[in-house]
This record gives sequence, C-alpha cells and structure tokens, in this order.
Amino acid sequence: MMSVFSQERLTALNAAYARCIDNDQLEQWPDFFSERCLYLITNADNHAAGMQAGMVYADTRAMLQDRVLAMRDANVYEEQRYRHIIGAPLVLEQDGNRAVVESPFLVVRIMRDGGTEVFATGRYLDQVVQLPDATLEFAERVVVCDSTNIDTLLVIPL
Amino acid sequence: MMSVFSQERLTALNAAYARCIDNDQLEQWPDFFSERCLYLITNADNHAAGMQAGMVYADTRAMLQDRVLAMRDANVYEEQRYRHIIGAPLVLEQDGNRAVVESPFLVVRIMRDGGTEVFATGRYLDQVVQLPDATLEFAERVVVCDSTNIDTLLVIPL
Amino acid sequence: MMSVFSQERLTALNAAYARCIDNDQLEQWPDFFSERCLYLITNADNHAAGMQAGMVYADTRAMLQDRVLAMRDANVYEEQRYRHIIGAPLVLEQDGNRAVVESPFLVVRIMRDGGTEVFATGRYLDQVVQLPDATLEFAERVVVCDSTNIDTLLVIPL
Repeated sequence: MMSVFSQERLTALNAAYARCIDNDQLEQWPDFFSERCLYLITNADNHAAGMQAGMVYADTRAMLQDRVLAMRDANVYEEQRYRHIIGAPLVLEQDGNRAVVESPFLVVRIMRDGGTEVFATGRYLDQVVQLPDATLEFAERVVVCDSTNIDTLLVIPL
Repeated sequence: MMSVFSQERLTALNAAYARCIDNDQLEQWPDFFSERCLYLITNADNHAAGMQAGMVYADTRAMLQDRVLAMRDANVYEEQRYRHIIGAPLVLEQDGNRAVVESPFLVVRIMRDGGTEVFATGRYLDQVVQLPDATLEFAERVVVCDSTNIDTLLVIPL
Repeated sequence: MMSVFSQERLTALNAAYARCIDNDQLEQWPDFFSERCLYLITNADNHAAGMQAGMVYADTRAMLQDRVLAMRDANVYEEQRYRHIIGAPLVLEQDGNRAVVESPFLVVRIMRDGGTEVFATGRYLDQVVQLPDATLEFAERVVVCDSTNIDTLLVIPL
C-alpha cells in the first residue's frame, strides 16, 4: 500500500495539474483546490519578507473558476501556451491527512508565432490534504517565482 | 511487485530513452520501439486537427535504423547535442499489456560554439507495450511539439 | 521495503540537493558529500577525453565548506539565483552499499534584474554510498556540462 503522501502520489498530482493547464483543460483546474483554499503567485523576495500580497490571489475555488472564465473571455490560448516541467516533490511536514510539500518548477511559454522562452521558474509551496475518498487536493498552493520580473500580463495559471 | 505500468517503470523507460539520445548512443535508439511501430513528430495544431502528417514519420524499426545511419552520415553530433528533461508520465488508459501514456518534455539544444537554447517542448503520446520477457517498448510514440516553429533542420530524434 | 538505491530514494536525494542550493542553504550543501569525496565540474568534451581537470575540483568535504565561505564573502546570492530541474536518476551499476548513478539536469539562472536564462545542462555522474544509518551521500559527483562555454564566473554549485 502506498503511504498517503508518497512521492509517487504527489508526483502524479503535480503531473495531472500541469497537464490540465498545458493541454488547455482550464475548466478542470479549480478542481485541484479545496473549496476554501489559498492560491497565490508571488516572488521570492516578497515571500522571504513574509508578504502575503502577490500578483494573483484567490482564497476560494469559486474565485479560481471566475479566473478561468476571464481567461476564456480574453482568449489567452489563442496567443500563448505553457509547458510546465515540475521537479520531484519533497514532503517537508506531514500530519495525518495534511502535508506541507515543496516542488520546483519551470514553465516555458510558447507564443503563437513559435517563439519559445523560459517564462518562469520557482517552487510550489503546498498544503496538500487527503479527502475521505482518498483523492488529494491543494488546500494551499503558493507559487513562489524566482524572478521579480514576471510578465504583468500573466494570465494562464502557474 | 511493481505493477506493469507503474510510474517507476515508465519513468525509467523515459530516462533510458533520453539518455540514449543525449549520450550519443543513437544505434540503440530504435530498440526502444516495436518492429512495427509509429514514430511521429508533429505539432499541437496538426495533432488537434487529427492530421497524421508530421515533420518526421516512421512506421517500422527498420526506418528508424535508416534514420540513424543518415544522421551518422551527416555528422550531426559534431554540430549539436540535445538534453532532454522529461516530466512525470501519466497513464491515461491501460489494458493488460498495453497502456496509453502521456509525458511532458523539454529539449535543450547545445551548439558546438556553446550556445544553449530551449529547442522544443511538448508531450509524448505513447502506446507502451510489455513484452513476454517483461521489457517495455513503444508501439507508438507521437511527439507533439508545442510550437509550430520547430527548426526544419531537425535531425536528432526527440 | 524500498531497495537501497530505489528510484524513489535517489530522486529524493537529488531533490534535497537541488533545494539546498536553490533555497540558499549553502552551508548544508557539503553535507551531501562524503568526507573524502570527488566533486568535479567539467564538460562533455573533457570528460569524453578522460581528463580529470575541470572548472571546479574538490576532493574533501572541507574543500566544499571553504568554497561556501568564499561564496558568502562574494555575496553571490545578491546577484543571482539558480533553479535546478533534475531528471530521473538511472542506476548504472550497483554493488552492496555503493551505486553508480546518472541523472540529467537543467539549471536556470535568474539575475537580480529579473533576467532568466538556461545557464547549464548536463548530467550528474555519481557514486552514491549508503551509510550504516541508511542515509545516502555522494562519494563522487561529477557534473558533466553539455556546453564547453560555461560562464567562467561560475560561483554557485551545480
């Protein structure tokens, strides 16, 4: 039997999350989060300073759903695609059905004209919870970008 | 006992595949495929449109071997190297000794003069089969590049 | 029970190693190595030619500690950060409590002004040993960079 927060399960969670975004199935993306949650995109400097402010902030799944609707209105997938490469997750703390997990990531952006560039790097700082039906979801996903200089037109989720 | 298409086994398969190409052991590369197979490099737009055409197409292992010979004639490794970083594989379907698997990838190209750039990103869409001796091989590997703008001088396998 | 050099354990070792560097906990970095060890940064051409010379060479943990002190003096983390993405480790040989392992890597460098670029790619060629208390450490980590053209100002460990 696999343990609750085995590397294998967390790796599969991250892989499904990335696939959802990169394959343009954004309507499913909010389902990776708890109904009350924290999704925050920030940078390393602000995070180190303990600031909760970020470039993107949501604390309910409904806010994430609104965000997806806005992205659809803006037709962002006409303009660009992302490709996430997520490194191995490390469990930093674990307590029953809740764990603190860190995973490094790299996101490449592919523009409509074919241009390809490293768009963002950083680490996910997550609180992952296991539900009674054994699925895993994010109670928190704090996206700590390494650079302070992320494109302010940031529209697709990281 | 590991299951037939465990994350661990598929990860090891992808790692060995990437190592074979990146370490310039191309003569072993066709051995990752079934004798009758599909190896196709295409892009996301063509793939979404259901087109089987691609930048590279082979449907037998012998064609892949021919391709390696042509690369050797062209001395492509004198000019450039690749480095594959492959994300976690996800099993999408599974039926006995056959599975449909998707894995994201990033390939960096390193030119002889030292220049280094993200060359391609995308996902592998595979049909993996297990042989009676328990080895895994690709009955299909469709390489769906994110960009429509892949270098037409594409010579090293993705 | 996990085997001594399972993919899971080696992946966790690489993840902890990368996290230590990328999160600026360099003082812990030498602890990943045996007291007598080999840490070498070289390139593919020199490595293929059997040359032991490299851009960085250390053969004791104490030398690695000195290196960290020098980095602190130079305030390198004021200027730049790294983000390692490490691919799946492959065990090439294994004998009791010692294994030869290869892992591909990609390192992105993030400059203070926000500029982000692929800094280095290559593979780690490791001798990993298991200690009596079951922890793993590097008796050797040879960092074989793909490019001959790595920045000579190389200061943060790869």
